[in-house]
Amino acid sequence: MSKKPSIPKGTRDFNPEEVTRRNYIFNIIKETFSLYGFQPIETPSFENSATLMGKYGEEGDRLIFKILNSGDYLSKVNEELYTEKDSQKITAKISEKALRYDLTVPFARYVVQHQNEITFPFKRYQIQPVWRADRPQKGRFREFYQCDADVVGSTSLWQEVEFVQLYDAVFNKLGLRGVTIKLNNRKILSGIAQTIGAEDKLIDFTVALDKLDKIGEDGVKKEMRDKGISEDALQKLQPLFSFTGSNDEKINALKKLLHGSQIGLKGAAELEFITKNIEALGLQRASLEIDVTLARGLNYYTGAIFEVSAPTEVKMGSIGGGGRYDDLTGIFGLKNMSGVGISFGLDRIYLVLEELKLFPETVSENSKALFINFGKKEALYAMKAITNLRKAGVKVELYPDEAKMGKQMGYADKRNIPYTVLAGEKEMEVQSFTLKNMKSGEQIQVTYSELEKYLG
Amino acid sequence: MSKKPSIPKGTRDFNPEEVTRRNYIFNIIKETFSLYGFQPIETPSFENSATLMGKYGEEGDRLIFKILNSGDYLSKVNEELYTEKDSQKITAKISEKALRYDLTVPFARYVVQHQNEITFPFKRYQIQPVWRADRPQKGRFREFYQCDADVVGSTSLWQEVEFVQLYDAVFNKLGLRGVTIKLNNRKILSGIAQTIGAEDKLIDFTVALDKLDKIGEDGVKKEMRDKGISEDALQKLQPLFSFTGSNDEKINALKKLLHGSQIGLKGAAELEFITKNIEALGLQRASLEIDVTLARGLNYYTGAIFEVSAPTEVKMGSIGGGGRYDDLTGIFGLKNMSGVGISFGLDRIYLVLEELKLFPETVSENSKALFINFGKKEALYAMKAITNLRKAGVKVELYPDEAKMGKQMGYADKRNIPYTVLAGEKEMEVQSFTLKNMKSGEQIQVTYSELEKYLG
Repeated sequence: MSKKPSIPKGTRDFNPEEVTRRNYIFNIIKETFSLYGFQPIETPSFENSATLMGKYGEEGDRLIFKILNSGDYLSKVNEELYTEKDSQKITAKISEKALRYDLTVPFARYVVQHQNEITFPFKRYQIQPVWRADRPQKGRFREFYQCDADVVGSTSLWQEVEFVQLYDAVFNKLGLRGVTIKLNNRKILSGIAQTIGAEDKLIDFTVALDKLDKIGEDGVKKEMRDKGISEDALQKLQPLFSFTGSNDEKINALKKLLHGSQIGLKGAAELEFITKNIEALGLQRASLEIDVTLARGLNYYTGAIFEVSAPTEVKMGSIGGGGRYDDLTGIFGLKNMSGVGISFGLDRIYLVLEELKLFPETVSENSKALFINFGKKEALYAMKAITNLRKAGVKVELYPDEAKMGKQMGYADKRNIPYTVLAGEKEMEVQSFTLKNMKSGEQIQVTYSELEKYLG
Repeated sequence: MSKKPSIPKGTRDFNPEEVTRRNYIFNIIKETFSLYGFQPIETPSFENSATLMGKYGEEGDRLIFKILNSGDYLSKVNEELYTEKDSQKITAKISEKALRYDLTVPFARYVVQHQNEITFPFKRYQIQPVWRADRPQKGRFREFYQCDADVVGSTSLWQEVEFVQLYDAVFNKLGLRGVTIKLNNRKILSGIAQTIGAEDKLIDFTVALDKLDKIGEDGVKKEMRDKGISEDALQKLQPLFSFTGSNDEKINALKKLLHGSQIGLKGAAELEFITKNIEALGLQRASLEIDVTLARGLNYYTGAIFEVSAPTEVKMGSIGGGGRYDDLTGIFGLKNMSGVGISFGLDRIYLVLEELKLFPETVSENSKALFINFGKKEALYAMKAITNLRKAGVKVELYPDEAKMGKQMGYADKRNIPYTVLAGEKEMEVQSFTLKNMKSGEQIQVTYSELEKYLG
């Protein structure tokens, strides 16, 4: 192979610095999930196709990566079908497995498959890659990690309260100020739909309303009229065009607006439970804000809807989201299992931390010192110190070859290793080491225990 | 879907306890890799087929999972080829990507692709899943993790010395006694081949010699004769049939035996360098043992060959292995890059630790206490304490629903949560909590700060 090798489009190699920084984020998320009582599970990278297909709509089915059967897979395709040469029809015959498209469907499958071993309510977290045959573009990859926490088996709204706290805790630990946790409820949207007298106009309505900032009240109303929303409906929903103020004020406005819709009022009561309790408990850095235009995953969620916005100074869109879905496991035959969950957008959080320079400098797996290799005897002397330092938990290395001093120093430099240790005949004679600070150039002669103190 | 869902054969779900235990092993391996100066990289789960195919032999090619192209993939197969209906030939046209089969080939690809950004010698570790379409059987899976550390870009034998230390350090931290690190060298095997006058009989020879324990000297010699190894060769190699004693004694025997083979003597010198230096540096718990029958990856390794055996009281075979390969990146066009690396067998190590009951009890992500839910007001009171406890890093949970006491207690019991906290009207009045030890049944009334002290 003469061509320089490459990787498939939409995938990435991660170098040591990137892996370390990604792990910094993963570890904070994991630690917080665990603190909140969530326990980790892992599911296989590929599932039986029957588990995944048909769960994400037609578009989703198309974007699922299918795995080719092994062996003489074409022998299972009968002649009639083969002659048609219809890729879609043949796929089902030559592929039985597919790569995970998200973590929610495999979780639902897990819950149903292991229902007899699970103690409900089941709080699980899962951090694993997923794959989508999407067209790659800036910030959109064909392989990426999802970080999900869900509770299944309880309808208690305390869980929504805890998820708001959990978001706040994670972003606080990451040092992120100005994060907004937006909250809506599917029942509010249903109430609005009842009020405008047409459930089928709901998406058009929220899409248009979402543009209020950009195109103003008149622009939004024009778009709504164009979509066939009646003048009468616009009249009734007038309060939503000046929907500002505190969460309390918004809830009061919603109660008035939706007074004729039982489900709408239930939604308002749920919003009230969550916001009032969060107010009583306090958040560390994030703010919680009711946003009735939030319609994320509309066909999926049945109660709370969450979305987290990055600080406004970075243009990034949502860095997390989630909500409640009343029938998570129904697709696999287990009824009446309410679920609620949230997810963190790892790649975007990474970009935000990078842009705001929030990765701590200490996030590094780098060695503390490089021992210079002066020859067999000297290297053994160095290795004795290295062996002891490692036992004491200090990251140190020996330059493996007896290369020229300049080359070895250059290596420490390029690797950003902060110290070098020199031990030649002179040092060996008095059982000492010369410790060189690579930044200042300063050199001092030390004993082993002084060395351990300096580097430890 | 009415059928209970399942996962593809050869794959596994991991429940919280299993994930936690696996992470316990992963973390010790990672921590030790890092301590020895290795840095983490990650590569995509799938590579271009051209990167993987032809690198693992014909059998390997068959065992690689191929990913079906998206869209109307059959339209790219011309009529002539299509009519043949030859699965193998058509695969190349309808699949461009394949799941990673190991971590070594992707690492070689990574090194060549990023050679201008890498500072050599490059010490990398990589812990990621790999996939093989092997027939699943006990202990053999279609998806499993590999844990590899390699150095590329130096021929220094100090690296072999460090890998022996690294194995010792990891298994010591895992609490495993009686681990044997077996060491051989491809050059020794070449020397033996020269001595018996036939390179092509080398595998037959080592396979037979390996059975010495089981079938005795006569049995081994019979098998060798059956394979066409001459009486003269058997005469020359007689010392290998009583190849016991210390590493020093073995090396002396090898030097005598292989005195006519330059490459054989080089192998003996390399073994000597490694064993002498390990002797000088000392190992913590493992022992290092020269084993000339070790022929693992014969066609691949060019220098040292490692294999780690589990303690003899568990029947498990090798729990790690590795060696030196002089031309790692040559397959991708970058010549003269010597590599040396080792690997840990996660699944087998897990089974060994389980069998020997070596997983520490503290390896658990479980919550420390469950707060009983007595109603809205009481739950808020509990949530205030929970919020503060979590800020202090204590894992606690609220039972989400106002269920009957027995049900909530039963939940704590089934989840093995060691404490429950009860706070009803009585406790709220005096700002206290009742802390119940679930094992002893003992109950005490405490203030918040006492609670934090007990649970923290």
